[in-house]
Amino acid sequence: MIALSPLHRVPTQADLLVTHEAIHPFVHRTPILTSTSLDELTGARLSFKCENFQRIGAFKMRGGASAALRFTEAERERGLATHSSGNHAQAVARAAQVLGVPAYIVMPHDAPRVKVAAVKGYGAEITYCNNTPHERQAALEEVVARTGAAFIHPFDDYGVVAGQATAAMELIEDVDRVLDYIITPVGGGGLLSGTALAARYFSIRAKVFGAEPEGVDDAARSLKSGKIEQNETNHTVSDGLRTHLGERTFPIIHKYVTDIFVVSDEETVAAMRLIWERMKIIVEPSCSVPLAAILRYPEVFRDKHVGIILTGGNVDVDRLPFG
Amino acid sequence: MIALSPLHRVPTQADLLVTHEAIHPFVHRTPILTSTSLDELTGARLSFKCENFQRIGAFKMRGGASAALRFTEAERERGLATHSSGNHAQAVARAAQVLGVPAYIVMPHDAPRVKVAAVKGYGAEITYCNNTPHERQAALEEVVARTGAAFIHPFDDYGVVAGQATAAMELIEDVDRVLDYIITPVGGGGLLSGTALAARYFSIRAKVFGAEPEGVDDAARSLKSGKIEQNETNHTVSDGLRTHLGERTFPIIHKYVTDIFVVSDEETVAAMRLIWERMKIIVEPSCSVPLAAILRYPEVFRDKHVGIILTGGNVDVDRLPFG
Repeated sequence: MIALSPLHRVPTQADLLVTHEAIHPFVHRTPILTSTSLDELTGARLSFKCENFQRIGAFKMRGGASAALRFTEAERERGLATHSSGNHAQAVARAAQVLGVPAYIVMPHDAPRVKVAAVKGYGAEITYCNNTPHERQAALEEVVARTGAAFIHPFDDYGVVAGQATAAMELIEDVDRVLDYIITPVGGGGLLSGTALAARYFSIRAKVFGAEPEGVDDAARSLKSGKIEQNETNHTVSDGLRTHLGERTFPIIHKYVTDIFVVSDEETVAAMRLIWERMKIIVEPSCSVPLAAILRYPEVFRDKHVGIILTGGNVDVDRLPFG
Repeated sequence: MIALSPLHRVPTQADLLVTHEAIHPFVHRTPILTSTSLDELTGARLSFKCENFQRIGAFKMRGGASAALRFTEAERERGLATHSSGNHAQAVARAAQVLGVPAYIVMPHDAPRVKVAAVKGYGAEITYCNNTPHERQAALEEVVARTGAAFIHPFDDYGVVAGQATAAMELIEDVDRVLDYIITPVGGGGLLSGTALAARYFSIRAKVFGAEPEGVDDAARSLKSGKIEQNETNHTVSDGLRTHLGERTFPIIHKYVTDIFVVSDEETVAAMRLIWERMKIIVEPSCSVPLAAILRYPEVFRDKHVGIILTGGNVDVDRLPFG
């Protein structure tokens, strides 16, 4: 196992390269898919980086592994801890399993069933809490105090950012054409900031865009106002995108991201249905927000080569938003 | 466009090679996926040939194209015709669209919505009928008499068999290990007979198995009795597998297929859910029957390298069989 140094600054090009090498035992190199039918529909040429096929079913495995490898063996021997309703929880649980250390995960009572089951399946101990920032934080602090486990923040951590960046690195390396744009969803900004760094370091000309649900449009407002804005509600079908930006992710996004598009939940579900029906792959609502943005703003994307990071595929197939 | 000769005998190795080259303008080379999680669950090493990602969402595009190319230009200029409730209908409609000729499709009133919509989308003329063999045949004869279109049988046609064989040819070529077994669903036997020929001509040692639903287990009974058996009902969730074997497909299957496994609809739906949840890809019930067989007969498949042809992904996402 390659050890990584702790990151106390914005990751450099060299940081990303060594991170990509180090996380190899934890992740798949996911495929790029294309769709004639969606190209015709959007007027763009789309390359989908399929992180729904990633270990744990989402790109979060990259950031979780990258952060876990930055602790010393002594630090992580007492376990890894985090709070998350979903894919980051699975990533930390799985990283701990691979490393042979315990995992302690704080999850809200209403987390998706499939994600709770997966976290259990990786052998983690789950502490349930009510779904408010205050109670989540309190539960986490209690767990860390009790166990001495090392905390991995879901996004506001340069180690996590460096890990998430590796998805775009592979996309840029694998696509057999020069990308004009790369677009990702944005919640806390770990993936979007990592993607922006990867594009800056490794792409010839790709501009980076974010896409988020209108119910939690903090990132679009933050980009305009120049400071971290909060959300008044967490009402969106995209359960992975409810958080606001972090102190580490926002400055990277502010500096390097061209624009952030906002879409309605109806547009997200329609895009999700298109991906399911045309591409025959399973993606989460959160994952469908970028295609919704491309369909909403066709004049921006027409005739462009666009890389889309499909972030995850962990949905309860018994409770789908279609209908 | 490469012209193909009509096939009045069991396709030879050379027939399959030239067919594979000729159908290139109509089909994708579909990817092979693997799943660590399903390997652990089955104790086997599985390679999935993803024909759910094929043009029209199913392997039937291969047989449809292969058969269409065997008519002369004069013969097909008045159009292509078939009867089918599903994927073969789409294949013939799409082949006609690529060739620039009309398509006339006889479909039962209760065909899946998504398949009817796709056939319309390819510009075909649909004639609806009641879902009985007699009425289907009568409707087809009326259409052919009226239009002079060339009929492509859904499976009992050596041209179709040669086309379906190309999926297994690619599987055998692409899998980076020697396959012990290849398993496919069986309805009319076009895919299974083609797969058996491909394995015989191109594989070092792969044995070929079929898998079918217990409600329509004609193929398993036919293999035992040595003659074409009929089904008493067409009751199964696997809507693509309701037909019995044909006069051309049965002798190939009888000679070259090792065994045919029978599974319940409950086992099929459970296997379908596993593919959706673990692999994050969309497959039809019919498509999930082979994995159901592997899970039902683990002693047959344990430690074997098994190629599975995932036949199609055309499901109504609003009407799923999960419960």
